[in-house]
Amino acid sequence: MSEDSFTNEASRLALKYSSIYGGKIEVAPKVPIRDLKDFSIWYTPGVAAVSEAIKSSRELSFEYTCRWNTLAIITDGSRVLGLGDIGPEAAMPVMEGKALIYKYLGGVDAIPLPIDIYEPDKMIEVIKSLQPAFGGINLEDISSPKCFYIMDKLREEMEIPIWHDDQQGTAGVILASLINSLKLTERKLRGTKIVFFGVGAANIANARLIMEAGADPGDFILIDSKGILHSEREDMDRLLLEHPWKHDLVIKTNKEKVSGNLTKAFDSSDVLIAASRPGPDVIKKEWISKMNGKAIVFTLANPIPEIWPWEAREAGAYIVATGRSDFPNQANNSLIFPAVFRGVLDIRAKAITDEIVISAAEELARCAEEKGLSRDHIIPTMAEWEVYPKVAAKVGEKGVELGLARKSMSKDEIYERAIEIIGRSRRLLKSLIEAKIIPLQPIKE
Amino acid sequence: MSEDSFTNEASRLALKYSSIYGGKIEVAPKVPIRDLKDFSIWYTPGVAAVSEAIKSSRELSFEYTCRWNTLAIITDGSRVLGLGDIGPEAAMPVMEGKALIYKYLGGVDAIPLPIDIYEPDKMIEVIKSLQPAFGGINLEDISSPKCFYIMDKLREEMEIPIWHDDQQGTAGVILASLINSLKLTERKLRGTKIVFFGVGAANIANARLIMEAGADPGDFILIDSKGILHSEREDMDRLLLEHPWKHDLVIKTNKEKVSGNLTKAFDSSDVLIAASRPGPDVIKKEWISKMNGKAIVFTLANPIPEIWPWEAREAGAYIVATGRSDFPNQANNSLIFPAVFRGVLDIRAKAITDEIVISAAEELARCAEEKGLSRDHIIPTMAEWEVYPKVAAKVGEKGVELGLARKSMSKDEIYERAIEIIGRSRRLLKSLIEAKIIPLQPIKE
Repeated sequence: MSEDSFTNEASRLALKYSSIYGGKIEVAPKVPIRDLKDFSIWYTPGVAAVSEAIKSSRELSFEYTCRWNTLAIITDGSRVLGLGDIGPEAAMPVMEGKALIYKYLGGVDAIPLPIDIYEPDKMIEVIKSLQPAFGGINLEDISSPKCFYIMDKLREEMEIPIWHDDQQGTAGVILASLINSLKLTERKLRGTKIVFFGVGAANIANARLIMEAGADPGDFILIDSKGILHSEREDMDRLLLEHPWKHDLVIKTNKEKVSGNLTKAFDSSDVLIAASRPGPDVIKKEWISKMNGKAIVFTLANPIPEIWPWEAREAGAYIVATGRSDFPNQANNSLIFPAVFRGVLDIRAKAITDEIVISAAEELARCAEEKGLSRDHIIPTMAEWEVYPKVAAKVGEKGVELGLARKSMSKDEIYERAIEIIGRSRRLLKSLIEAKIIPLQPIKE
Repeated sequence: MSEDSFTNEASRLALKYSSIYGGKIEVAPKVPIRDLKDFSIWYTPGVAAVSEAIKSSRELSFEYTCRWNTLAIITDGSRVLGLGDIGPEAAMPVMEGKALIYKYLGGVDAIPLPIDIYEPDKMIEVIKSLQPAFGGINLEDISSPKCFYIMDKLREEMEIPIWHDDQQGTAGVILASLINSLKLTERKLRGTKIVFFGVGAANIANARLIMEAGADPGDFILIDSKGILHSEREDMDRLLLEHPWKHDLVIKTNKEKVSGNLTKAFDSSDVLIAASRPGPDVIKKEWISKMNGKAIVFTLANPIPEIWPWEAREAGAYIVATGRSDFPNQANNSLIFPAVFRGVLDIRAKAITDEIVISAAEELARCAEEKGLSRDHIIPTMAEWEVYPKVAAKVGEKGVELGLARKSMSKDEIYERAIEIIGRSRRLLKSLIEAKIIPLQPIKE
């Protein structure tokens, strides 16, 4: 890693600035306090009337409290970035960073909640108990396979949208990237051969969503740490017991039952989606060289992709995407989660479904296409502000169409509101910097 | 209640404004985002180094994340204001109001977390699991007696300060009010006869803390909904089983075993502390008229005290305090909880003990005395900004002295830091109003 000066410098500044600023987010008032008399409105005695109104109809908590715009970012710290099981305290900086992105790009109030509990049913109990405070739940960095169990159960039992960003967020942005890569290389989703390298939460979600979007899973080949997966591999019985979600996927994929040497998986494949462990040198150049012409290579590990982009190109990749902001085509969840939650929160949705995620991905792809597609521009960058309200509007429209909205709004209304809320969020930051509440240069630098 | 135009107007505005503003608090960035490159510091890849540092030493989460200044306000909504068991959704507006006060008066980031779980051991499990995100826990509006069980258990098992505002907050401000009332009426704590009207969380905590501060509990008389409590009352066996905390107190109090008609409890008493149910007319004038000269009457029910202050005065009360901001001597928890948490958070305390609460009360009393005591000025008002850093400094000093601090600081350091943080918090609000991020007049009014 010594050669990666970008990561080294970012790490140095992250440690320094996190300590100087004492974290990344804070609670701010969003109502005026002209003098202390105003507390008779915001607190007792006035507040009692608000509580009584909500008591008579619980759904009014979306009207009278910050719940309508607030979600929890929940992790047990069992699978954080490329760092593995580092525990909830150590996961907190990542959750805080996510909250910062939620606010800045989506105008969403996200509360980082790393929890010190690991048994899936107990985690479910804790998360369910938090429902009255939140309009949505973002699960984050929870190890596989328990993340699937927790996700499925919460979706059944809760009345607010549940999102596991390592699943839906990743899959949404990958689907968007894939849609445009296929356009650029004149392929159709149906018939495209895709290698999934790494079969954790991200790639299981990627495979599932790409399948939902119309691909033939028979054309997928999954590779995990033990090699190529196929329905006759010796550990399939164990998988059925321990990881039914993965088992289910293996049954549907690799219709030619390719097995053995990894090179065989790449042979004549069109797309590689790697979501495994930090590189470089996890993916070999020789593997990519076996792929079809105009190969599409997504290497998503953080902080260092499974293979450096220039090496992938040298080996024949035509389009390369990574999770990194310092390379072109950053397939970053941040492109999608702030917009998706902007949309579902504004319609006060009861759930997020795969159809909503696919809508978001299609809209994201469309936004990039509007600006002109190229090998180095298959998806928007995080700096394209206009994208977020568009994706939010599409998501909200889909939610209303699917009957998931508590509050019915037209696409235009959702769009206008998203522009307003996200714009306000950026003005909020700007005004705090201008007022020197947020020092632009750390004081102690 | 129709004659109480103050409450009616506050209620009307609370409903209207809560809906217009969509709640009272939001998440704000506290770091600059100059451009998207900064996310390489606040998020991946830089954030990984911060997570690794905390992994190597969990306590560093107080250094590198917002945990050092963040607490959770947790309720199950089982005993909210004078409204009773209204549930967590309906409790949310109150928790949000509290968070607003925490920020405005204490510079503390408080997250409202109404939880949808009621069984005490399960509540304990949920609250314990939240520890990694928070520097402290404020329990709120949880019914008695389970609040005592939960509090005791959490104090044993958690490594951050646990505060039940209906206990410690109330008791702290009542002790401060009592200290100065005794001065004004030339009484000593030892020998003063105190009637506690209502034996819920607040008055049990009041009695316990006043006892800890040096009063003789034998001089206390407790009155609950069944009348005067004494060690031979017929329900003592049941109490021992169902509410050992109350039982324990009854055993120690009412040494003369006064029983029967309520009037007898008031006869020759010096102080009345009522924390029962909303008035007026819950306390009768004739009872107060039985008290000793220069009687001290604290009637704390919200939104309407157990007896209107003017009636208490007519009946002979010399000093009257209530929970209301529109009368003199507002014995309001808001005078104490923001300052106490400012102090304990700054020293990264592991706990809050009774000694700390007594220190806070003594300092609060001293601050009022500095300005000159009178019947209508026994405690500071919420508008006396200079009080909060002073109480915070005293609290922090005591915490360090008791060996409860993770971070050792001198009293002066704590004081200066408290002034800085609270001042910043007020400037934050001001700058948001000036930038029109917070509209001073609600847009739709």
